[in-house]
Amino acid sequence: MKIKAYAAKEAKGKLEKFEYELGKIGNEQVDIKVHYCGLCHSDISMINNDWGMSQYPLVPGHEIVGEVLNVGSEVKGIKKGDKVGMGWYSASCMHCNQCMDGKQHLCGDAEGTIIGRHGGFADVVRGHWSWATLLPDGIDMAKAGPLFCGGITVFNPIVLSGVKPTDKVGVIGIGGLGHMALKFLKAWGCEVTAFTSNKDKSEALKKMGAHHVVDSTNSDELKDIEGTLDFIMNTTNVKLDWDAFLTTLAPQGKLHTVGAVLEPMEIPAFSMISGEKSVGGSPLGSIALTRKMLEFCVRHDIYPTVEEFKMEDVNEAIHHLEEGKARFRVVLKA
Amino acid sequence: MKIKAYAAKEAKGKLEKFEYELGKIGNEQVDIKVHYCGLCHSDISMINNDWGMSQYPLVPGHEIVGEVLNVGSEVKGIKKGDKVGMGWYSASCMHCNQCMDGKQHLCGDAEGTIIGRHGGFADVVRGHWSWATLLPDGIDMAKAGPLFCGGITVFNPIVLSGVKPTDKVGVIGIGGLGHMALKFLKAWGCEVTAFTSNKDKSEALKKMGAHHVVDSTNSDELKDIEGTLDFIMNTTNVKLDWDAFLTTLAPQGKLHTVGAVLEPMEIPAFSMISGEKSVGGSPLGSIALTRKMLEFCVRHDIYPTVEEFKMEDVNEAIHHLEEGKARFRVVLKA
Repeated sequence: MKIKAYAAKEAKGKLEKFEYELGKIGNEQVDIKVHYCGLCHSDISMINNDWGMSQYPLVPGHEIVGEVLNVGSEVKGIKKGDKVGMGWYSASCMHCNQCMDGKQHLCGDAEGTIIGRHGGFADVVRGHWSWATLLPDGIDMAKAGPLFCGGITVFNPIVLSGVKPTDKVGVIGIGGLGHMALKFLKAWGCEVTAFTSNKDKSEALKKMGAHHVVDSTNSDELKDIEGTLDFIMNTTNVKLDWDAFLTTLAPQGKLHTVGAVLEPMEIPAFSMISGEKSVGGSPLGSIALTRKMLEFCVRHDIYPTVEEFKMEDVNEAIHHLEEGKARFRVVLKA
Repeated sequence: MKIKAYAAKEAKGKLEKFEYELGKIGNEQVDIKVHYCGLCHSDISMINNDWGMSQYPLVPGHEIVGEVLNVGSEVKGIKKGDKVGMGWYSASCMHCNQCMDGKQHLCGDAEGTIIGRHGGFADVVRGHWSWATLLPDGIDMAKAGPLFCGGITVFNPIVLSGVKPTDKVGVIGIGGLGHMALKFLKAWGCEVTAFTSNKDKSEALKKMGAHHVVDSTNSDELKDIEGTLDFIMNTTNVKLDWDAFLTTLAPQGKLHTVGAVLEPMEIPAFSMISGEKSVGGSPLGSIALTRKMLEFCVRHDIYPTVEEFKMEDVNEAIHHLEEGKARFRVVLKA
């Protein structure tokens, strides 16, 4: 099958039309006709080879929703015509301890959808059936794509950290990931504080679910909420005064990062010891949790706030995101 | 009541005989006749005013076991003649959210046994009834003192972190705290690795419960156990290559410090994110957990390995500990 896609031919290159031949489908694989695909910062990092693991031509796109075109002979639970989504991973080994324990996203051999293979800026994308998640009835496909990477990335820590509806929580950085975290945590029943360095966004953030907006660069404002938060999720990848945020945590509070801050985080031991606090991180989420997240989204009408571009305008969309103008997530329509 | 004690009269001073008048007992207080009192590194830190909060004359001693001499009118669950222990804390407010939630050791107003009041290097010590823990039948009083500070400090993280008998675990630093951690984790059913920079201790550590002894300063040895440990407890207060230890953790593994490392711990975000790992800390433990720990010790015959000195030889005992010669915990007999 000949696939029509958009690819970068070299690091930092503009995306260009690109065709490639998709071989015979594997017994455990499905082919998905792409309807929508979100644009994630990681797509740009991969285009630019920021992580040193890009292979060119590179077809980005890993926030895919679409319809199943073909299934291999051993595919379970999915049939031709089903509506599905696929995210950062397109396969995992399915037999290691992590896979067997329902933590397939922690599989050491998990296959990245755009790492060494071609992603969803294309008319068709292929993957293992287990990573093609059935969309629940009633979901809005035009907005669902980003749930499969950004969405599950911020949903997973809420479950992993045992956040409770009675908790007071905070989100650092309100962009593509952070705005989804606000919506999830509001629906979770929590009292939600948005940390931002840009208070111009305050009204928008309150509409999304923030009860309070705190200027994360203002030490007086941080001081005012000392010892109050049970959970803070960091979605930025910049160096911050982590100890100041630890100070805003209540006893047994958790600071969790999904932002891959490059410089080591400086965490004073005493700031953790005295209040039994902890610092953690996580990537994406498991297959089962992705399914539960989608049901939760439909039940609570939670979607990323998206701006839609046509797939053929992908370079314009990338430019828009790179300029920091996205409010809050870009989706490409095939 | 006139109390006979040993006190430092100034920072870094030798302990000297010291008498003080203990006023009328409070309604919720108990007086304990000291039989044994452990000697903890924190006693030395307080004698030396390392933390800037010492008041002189200072009577150290916060690993106390003894017999109840007197009880106030509102004391619950304890009567004259009972055998009890008391540790780092001698009171907490009993009405804040932490106290009400069974986490009295996280009470912001908890009273330190040797902070602004006199401790257990004395014939009698006083405290709130709630922090005087009844000793279970069959416990060896001569060895039980250190359980009330060092013991609960290393027992608490095992429970807090949800360590399971099927887990592979590690302990960094095998001294007064670490050797108790080894014994607890062995009895917990885990596969236990002792991290030490002194392999001369290997046989002793294996006798205490270590299945493996790894030289924490040898990067090849750390490399060999990459990705295997579910939980590591750090009992040292020196700067280590924390990322190297994170690398030895399995997915969802936890690095927990009870050692108050002075320099901020440098934790790369990516090392946590990729495997859902976390870093935490804790102090001591709750009243209820202290009770459970004591029962666990009696059931499994777990005690610190102690060296006994007479209370009157307290300066010699301090010198012994300061020289790093304690194997592994010093107890003073009243």
